[in-house]
Amino acid sequence: MSVKETAKAVRSAYLKLSALSGEQRAAALLRMADALERERESVLAANREDMETASEIAPAVRARLRFDEKKLAGCVEGLRALAALPDKVGAKLAETELAPGLVLEKVACPIGVIGIIFEARPDALVQIASLCLKSGNGALLKGGSEAQRTNRALYEVIYRASVEAGCPEGWLALLETRADVSEMLSEDETIDLLIPRGSNEFVRYIMDNSHIPVMGHADGICHLYLDAAADKARAVAVAVDSKCQYMAACNACETLLVHEAAAETVLPAVAAALREKGITLYGCERAQEILGCAPPPFGWAHEYLGPELSVRVVSDLERAVEHINTYGSGHTDAIVTEDRAAAERFLDAVDSADVFWNCSTRFADGFRFGFGAEVGISTSKIHARGPVGLEGLMIYKYKLRGSGDTVAPFAEGERNFTHKKRM
Amino acid sequence: MSVKETAKAVRSAYLKLSALSGEQRAAALLRMADALERERESVLAANREDMETASEIAPAVRARLRFDEKKLAGCVEGLRALAALPDKVGAKLAETELAPGLVLEKVACPIGVIGIIFEARPDALVQIASLCLKSGNGALLKGGSEAQRTNRALYEVIYRASVEAGCPEGWLALLETRADVSEMLSEDETIDLLIPRGSNEFVRYIMDNSHIPVMGHADGICHLYLDAAADKARAVAVAVDSKCQYMAACNACETLLVHEAAAETVLPAVAAALREKGITLYGCERAQEILGCAPPPFGWAHEYLGPELSVRVVSDLERAVEHINTYGSGHTDAIVTEDRAAAERFLDAVDSADVFWNCSTRFADGFRFGFGAEVGISTSKIHARGPVGLEGLMIYKYKLRGSGDTVAPFAEGERNFTHKKRM
Repeated sequence: MSVKETAKAVRSAYLKLSALSGEQRAAALLRMADALERERESVLAANREDMETASEIAPAVRARLRFDEKKLAGCVEGLRALAALPDKVGAKLAETELAPGLVLEKVACPIGVIGIIFEARPDALVQIASLCLKSGNGALLKGGSEAQRTNRALYEVIYRASVEAGCPEGWLALLETRADVSEMLSEDETIDLLIPRGSNEFVRYIMDNSHIPVMGHADGICHLYLDAAADKARAVAVAVDSKCQYMAACNACETLLVHEAAAETVLPAVAAALREKGITLYGCERAQEILGCAPPPFGWAHEYLGPELSVRVVSDLERAVEHINTYGSGHTDAIVTEDRAAAERFLDAVDSADVFWNCSTRFADGFRFGFGAEVGISTSKIHARGPVGLEGLMIYKYKLRGSGDTVAPFAEGERNFTHKKRM
Repeated sequence: MSVKETAKAVRSAYLKLSALSGEQRAAALLRMADALERERESVLAANREDMETASEIAPAVRARLRFDEKKLAGCVEGLRALAALPDKVGAKLAETELAPGLVLEKVACPIGVIGIIFEARPDALVQIASLCLKSGNGALLKGGSEAQRTNRALYEVIYRASVEAGCPEGWLALLETRADVSEMLSEDETIDLLIPRGSNEFVRYIMDNSHIPVMGHADGICHLYLDAAADKARAVAVAVDSKCQYMAACNACETLLVHEAAAETVLPAVAAALREKGITLYGCERAQEILGCAPPPFGWAHEYLGPELSVRVVSDLERAVEHINTYGSGHTDAIVTEDRAAAERFLDAVDSADVFWNCSTRFADGFRFGFGAEVGISTSKIHARGPVGLEGLMIYKYKLRGSGDTVAPFAEGERNFTHKKRM
């Protein structure tokens, strides 16, 4: 089957999937969890083969590629937790009486067909496929070639279990060749949304090469701004956590901005704490003077994802805001200050998905935000922004129920709209 | 200034616009209304010049190009109505305590910079610019060349009035050349959303030539399905209204589907009523037999926007649903039936923005739906679907306020998330 035909089959299956009850979808998720546990050996063996074949790739990629007992247990737990979340397909969002006997209802429904393209991590396959099932969406999956055997094994186990539990055949498809990806990117009549998971370059490539809307983020250039009224102890704690708690994450801090008034009082202590954690600092001219460091080698719009940090001293809060809105990626930016007015100005003026006051940028995460399940983090300005839960895979439709009503009598003034909001 | 520079200036102005109070934005809209009334003569004179220059263009385009006393009064009324609507910028949408002292707030905010490209109608300029102002968005406008003088006059009056009322300089920009449009389409780093207003071909061109998300619809291929249990009188009334009440509208019916069981009982009366209104019918083989008509000249996925209608007899409701999901444009589709179960199955299974039971497709409209102001009708599956009110120009951001909180103690099990939903 061509990608076009596969995508069409997914589209027609998704309508059946969304017509199931929430109980049926939850039962399918539980069945998938059971099947993964029961057939663990086939998946783990497939992963061992992938790992052997990939023996010459970088250690970081190998770590993502590995799918062991622990990752399998994580997938199983995730499936069971997702099954327990409330099902929103068909939920009534609003109701208005347009006129007597003519009632408008706004109802939640799945988006349709989701294209998921991920690089190495095979656990992403289970995670996103299950989120699609929960929300009634069909999905086309394309994983990285290094994980091909693992992906195939995982796909077969979870897909078969879902169909045995009553999900329609064809709701989930696995694509396997590189050529399939470019075909997928051009299927804008059949695929409604793309979710890429992988490196910045990979996500940017997807965004630049498709007319299908993309949910995700390429860069996570997150800032921490130490205001004139920053408390020194809080500044140290928040800076160290934002930069060092997990440096490879998209919500880790990449640039430290410091108010001139805090440059000689707060910055030295923060810099010392960061250097103690092994962080190399780069700075603007003023920061170079204070810290004795080099200028940032890649400019201000750079995501290190490792033990390096840019530092810039700014004359005031507005310059900090301007810097963030110019060089940031609209992901997560934080201020440390004891001045409430300065904090609120920062939260309003910084044009990012997540704006934080006196807390670490690392809190930007669907689980920490309490969403239960995370689809991803979006830096888009439409549909969904910031950490995205299941509702990012949903949209709505309008149902209007009448009794033979026509527009003509309203146009001619014989009938009038009441527009009574009932919910 | 290049389009890039103009767009950047709009972007920096929009942050100031959204920082104004709702009262200030409402006052600016009222000032725009007053200015339009006071300076009507300059606008009407500019339009007379445009009309003279365009004397050789098609009558339908001339009608859209005309901007007379009546259209001006409509714009003024629209501005005052919009000023009176509640302002949602900064509205709290949700609040969750993540842990004691760490509170997450979800707040409504404007999308950012909206690019608006419209063909002939100059009143669209006032309408969409004012919707952007109300929602705190900056806007780049590009109108059709036939209306260049009118657009310039309207822009100058409303922009000047808004700045006099305290809106930031540069929040609204007018582009005037065709070359500007292609530059605009490539400004995906600065423009967040495009709203095209014009013909299907025009909208499709925009969608196909930009990576910026587009809100709108190209086609409105709307269906009316007469079920086995359709009431004859209701079928006639709804069919005539759906097709004839305003044939050039996107929500007018283009294809009539008829259940085999109603083909000889209900269809003849419906066809007679439509033919009496001057509608030419085309049909499938079965419809040709019953109605003595020709086959549809352009296939099933065709939008006539005029006095023609395709008719197809189907064996059951599922075939009707399948036809709509295959040939429709996801805009608006209706069923006429006295069978509640059939109606509910139709409303669930038809994958369109608006699904109607026993009422005219012509109800698909933001004003009729009670939204007060209409941004447009969207057939997209993400962000906003169906008739879109002001909330289609808004998104949200997350504000997290703490007191020096870091992620490490949560990761190490020393602190636990409470995730208490407060709103």
